[in-house]
Amino acid sequence: MKIKGPKGTRDFYPDEMARRRYLHDAWRRVSERHGFDEVDGPIFEMLDLYRVKSGDGIVSELFHFTDRGDRELAIRPEFTPTLARMVAAKANALPKPVKWFCTPNLCRAERPQRGRLREFDQWNIDMLGLDGPIADAEVIAVACDLLSELGVGPERVKVKLSHREVVRQVLTSLGVPEDQMNAAFTLLDAKAKLPPEVFTEKAKALGLGDEQVQRFDAMCSQTYDVGQIDALREAAGIDDALDDLVAIDKTLAGFGLAEWCVYDLGIVRGLAYYTGTVFELHVTTGKERALGGGGRYDKLIELFGGPAMPGVGFGMGDVVLTNLLEDEGLLPDSLTTPNPDAYVIAVTDAGDTALPGVVSALRRTKLHARLNYKATRKVGKLLKDAENCGARYAILLDDEAANGNASVKDLGTGDQQTVAIDQLADHIA
Amino acid sequence: MKIKGPKGTRDFYPDEMARRRYLHDAWRRVSERHGFDEVDGPIFEMLDLYRVKSGDGIVSELFHFTDRGDRELAIRPEFTPTLARMVAAKANALPKPVKWFCTPNLCRAERPQRGRLREFDQWNIDMLGLDGPIADAEVIAVACDLLSELGVGPERVKVKLSHREVVRQVLTSLGVPEDQMNAAFTLLDAKAKLPPEVFTEKAKALGLGDEQVQRFDAMCSQTYDVGQIDALREAAGIDDALDDLVAIDKTLAGFGLAEWCVYDLGIVRGLAYYTGTVFELHVTTGKERALGGGGRYDKLIELFGGPAMPGVGFGMGDVVLTNLLEDEGLLPDSLTTPNPDAYVIAVTDAGDTALPGVVSALRRTKLHARLNYKATRKVGKLLKDAENCGARYAILLDDEAANGNASVKDLGTGDQQTVAIDQLADHIA
Repeated sequence: MKIKGPKGTRDFYPDEMARRRYLHDAWRRVSERHGFDEVDGPIFEMLDLYRVKSGDGIVSELFHFTDRGDRELAIRPEFTPTLARMVAAKANALPKPVKWFCTPNLCRAERPQRGRLREFDQWNIDMLGLDGPIADAEVIAVACDLLSELGVGPERVKVKLSHREVVRQVLTSLGVPEDQMNAAFTLLDAKAKLPPEVFTEKAKALGLGDEQVQRFDAMCSQTYDVGQIDALREAAGIDDALDDLVAIDKTLAGFGLAEWCVYDLGIVRGLAYYTGTVFELHVTTGKERALGGGGRYDKLIELFGGPAMPGVGFGMGDVVLTNLLEDEGLLPDSLTTPNPDAYVIAVTDAGDTALPGVVSALRRTKLHARLNYKATRKVGKLLKDAENCGARYAILLDDEAANGNASVKDLGTGDQQTVAIDQLADHIA
Repeated sequence: MKIKGPKGTRDFYPDEMARRRYLHDAWRRVSERHGFDEVDGPIFEMLDLYRVKSGDGIVSELFHFTDRGDRELAIRPEFTPTLARMVAAKANALPKPVKWFCTPNLCRAERPQRGRLREFDQWNIDMLGLDGPIADAEVIAVACDLLSELGVGPERVKVKLSHREVVRQVLTSLGVPEDQMNAAFTLLDAKAKLPPEVFTEKAKALGLGDEQVQRFDAMCSQTYDVGQIDALREAAGIDDALDDLVAIDKTLAGFGLAEWCVYDLGIVRGLAYYTGTVFELHVTTGKERALGGGGRYDKLIELFGGPAMPGVGFGMGDVVLTNLLEDEGLLPDSLTTPNPDAYVIAVTDAGDTALPGVVSALRRTKLHARLNYKATRKVGKLLKDAENCGARYAILLDDEAANGNASVKDLGTGDQQTVAIDQLADHIA
């Protein structure tokens, strides 16, 4: 009976797994050199954990089920609720600032399409318990450093940065009443997908006149570089609520991130829990979905029953990122398993007898040893196999094996010499 | 609102995650040096995939759910069905032998208890497409090498090995009719948990007389070392069906596994798909559940719609293994995140200004740099922080930073010297 893998999921055969591992290794390496500690949580959580953060609307996007105790559970669609639960549970005991990363697999019950699957991996970076712009800048810095590590520079990807409070001030100055603020954010979030006339119509429904609609449109159509806060201030037509952004601007420059970042007040990140900066990483050609995004969430830990604690973080999925690396030819050609130190070949019956002992002794000294499984004595063909798997040495076992000797061929230089079997590990290491 | 993590699952804070990573790194390192390639599959599969292998009885042990297309899905409780599906789908294209490993998280809807959780990690090793005893021996060898790598020797853990066909012959010779064979295997599997009189009663129900019951009992109460196949043959009272075991015996000795393995015909591994060798890894004190187990499954790939292909493999979970390492004091004391290369401290306002640039320049050269977030100028206290996180160097930024200089303290030797800021990475690397 032939059963297929589920829709929207992936099978990782060795080649695909090597590429996945390449990404995970980069995520881990970059996270660690920026001083983040790895964490993880369960693959499923109480369904209510997601309701707390996102309301009942989230349920249809989850794979959810009940256990035999009738508890409602759901496979994690994101890591943030787990992070918030874990931080809230030990908030006072954790050293501050909390700097955590993780690389969980996540599942969403949505229609698979380019850049979106039902199961994917996501790199999460979070920094909690530290007020001020250094946390925002460090979190953005680690995202940019990851891209650099993979060969993606600021000419290819930009961090588009906005600030919830700044946008709120602009909307207020345009005349959006407080009770229409969420609707205005929703409209801003949807703008890129709306025809201009629909945007205009919906903006007018918020109570804005023609001129205000035009200014609203302009606000989220223009970007500003790091160092151009004065220009942004003038265009936005507000005076205050920019202190935080001024401090962030200075810190971003200090961290060498000026060329990576642009301010774009059209970035919203949904209505969720963000309280200050919000940002998304976009390919400059603009063809793809965001590579990732995040922002400041100073109320999140309280929402999950913990103490007041500032926080900022982001998530970066593997699907869009892998598409980008493939399109740009940035995935190394030869991402396969590591090359063996030795490939062991038996060329006579006495060699066959010695082979298991030779192979296992090499492995016991932590060397990577492979062996020939083919029932052939054709040495030329077997040496070809050894070369094809990238082995450093071929070890040939013939009748001399009974006397404790092997023939060792350096596959780099072609040199061949006789080595005592009990000296093989030293010879190769 | 405070919501707990689900029953039977774990939160991995940095210390717990470092221990989990220690295990995963060892699994990966040992797998690779034995020539296994890493693979993985989806976290959930079509529910039918598990029904194919285990029947309808498995469903109650799974976390299962339907998607919006009413497809029945289940979180993976084991990796073998996914492996079989993946091998069956590309059987002809895969280079032989297939040597795969993976380290998936798995979920089972069972009551949590010591050694058993609802979510756990499991190391899987599988070798397919190769007939003969080398595959059995290599698979057992990689399990033993993993234990050695973690400091567990053959005096602490034994591989208990049996063989389905040998047991079948013994049972036949005792007079168990073919239609009672499954019942006899089930009884054998349950024996350790049954009071002796219940075992006797059930054995008699299979049609065995007093003497046969005694021989049945003896068969699975005695163990034999590698090299003692003659003694096993005599005790089992059979002549044939041992050729395979004789070949395996010789190969196990060849791979240096004699001190790790004992034959124990009481090992069954359920009624599942095993066709030849079956084995379990047990702590010699016998107090814990099996650390892992596996065997030969020559019909599995056909069952999943692929061609006939021999195979042998095993799984080793992280829960019992971690309990063992903890009990034996074999987990390294200081399993935390890597030590920073540099800990950067600003001791004046000019230092504050320079700090982000210094930290990010170090990280850009792939050095692990941390910084001081505390609003204090107490240098002694800050140097203490640097030492506590195991940094190699402390970099002190004072007013000299404005002139491009930093003070670098080697925290190993205590030496301190002035270094130009643009030379810091070279100085430290």
